[in-house]
Amino acid sequence: MNKVVVIGTGKVASHLTKALLAMGADVLQIVARSQASAQRMMAEVGTTLPYTTQKSAVVNHADLYICSVKDDAIAQAVDGINIPGNALLVHTSGSTDSQVLALFAANFGVLYPLQTFSYGKEVDFSKIALYIEANNTIFQNKLHLFANRLSPNVKVVDSAMRAKVHLAAVFACNFTNHLYAQAEKILAQVNLPFTDLLSLVDETTQKVHTLSPSQSQTGPAVRRDQPIIEKHLSQLDGKAKAIYQLLTESIQDDQL
Amino acid sequence: MNKVVVIGTGKVASHLTKALLAMGADVLQIVARSQASAQRMMAEVGTTLPYTTQKSAVVNHADLYICSVKDDAIAQAVDGINIPGNALLVHTSGSTDSQVLALFAANFGVLYPLQTFSYGKEVDFSKIALYIEANNTIFQNKLHLFANRLSPNVKVVDSAMRAKVHLAAVFACNFTNHLYAQAEKILAQVNLPFTDLLSLVDETTQKVHTLSPSQSQTGPAVRRDQPIIEKHLSQLDGKAKAIYQLLTESIQDDQL
Repeated sequence: MNKVVVIGTGKVASHLTKALLAMGADVLQIVARSQASAQRMMAEVGTTLPYTTQKSAVVNHADLYICSVKDDAIAQAVDGINIPGNALLVHTSGSTDSQVLALFAANFGVLYPLQTFSYGKEVDFSKIALYIEANNTIFQNKLHLFANRLSPNVKVVDSAMRAKVHLAAVFACNFTNHLYAQAEKILAQVNLPFTDLLSLVDETTQKVHTLSPSQSQTGPAVRRDQPIIEKHLSQLDGKAKAIYQLLTESIQDDQL
Repeated sequence: MNKVVVIGTGKVASHLTKALLAMGADVLQIVARSQASAQRMMAEVGTTLPYTTQKSAVVNHADLYICSVKDDAIAQAVDGINIPGNALLVHTSGSTDSQVLALFAANFGVLYPLQTFSYGKEVDFSKIALYIEANNTIFQNKLHLFANRLSPNVKVVDSAMRAKVHLAAVFACNFTNHLYAQAEKILAQVNLPFTDLLSLVDETTQKVHTLSPSQSQTGPAVRRDQPIIEKHLSQLDGKAKAIYQLLTESIQDDQL
């Protein structure tokens, strides 16, 4: 499997296309909603690629069709594209069942990269966990070999397992970022910049590279330092106070 | 100010002593509770230093006495040590008022490094924010110059401001780590290792180096993707479910 069509022009599509080109895949075509979105994507990827905005003009000699669009737009994005019977159609979503593709291709599956992508920020795919799935063994094996050219960490997981991975990612990425935002607001109250916390934030992240997070818990909650906990709560209100209380209780529950 | 006595042998004391030696300070003596704790600390620091376990034997010709022990042990650790009138006594706690030292020295203050320290893990003090405080301008200026030899990022903050910094650190470090632990538990349900998340965790941390956390929020909460939120909640129970609900609401409140 080496001839690829990428359906979509967003952040995941852009980063994935860049990685596909770097690993030597033949990206035959990009399927875009508009000329503008195709051009913005190619600027991001850093190269010019054939593209179409017409589903009827999608090439039918690719091995792999990768649909990388918003979860609720997947079915609409692939509907009307003629996927050949000897090719595989995958989406890249963490939280969408592979069955969403069943109506549109004989061979279908998922290639989910566990990462958050931003425009203008390079991503090293070789460090990313790739979760794959296909509706038959032949194409699962082909997809596995293909994905292994992007990253050594490829795992076959079904849609139910992948949903758990996506849920874990929300805790580790989205919710973590919100705690940073809460810390930023607290520091702003005394006119201090969030950047003062970066060394601590980096160290906290570095720790879990070598130690399980359940083993590396520190702070007043795990020490059951009630005077400090009370002092902290007295400085908070609203949602921030509720978050402090709930996370403190949850940390303490984990010690039982 | 260059002649230092360090009171305490824990993680902060060890890392700080190492940094003090590296910047050329003259560490005259370590004050330890026991020979064993002194020796363990010197193994951590990587050099032999004079030490005492007797308060009456603490040298009285240092410029700076740094007490780095657990918050509730500070007063007891310094009580009985003869701090000369031309020297400064500081503690290194984020959440303890400087006044705790008022009974024990004419000149007293705080040198609080905003970082989490672990045994066996090198820390670059030049990247750490140091929050200082002293009860008079002369010694505040001396402490400022001294601290600047450790890090370019030295700020004078009073105990009330420092308490806010400590509170922000609990959100950015302790609570973040607990979210990693929650993610670890979710992945364990499907026999996947926490290490699969490391690339995502690193990227999330890297993002806030260049973008404010309030601006870099992603995920179903900020997208108000209710079907995914419902799907996630249905997979959770207990404290993890309550955390998901509360953090989702809090992220959405921030957008209003």
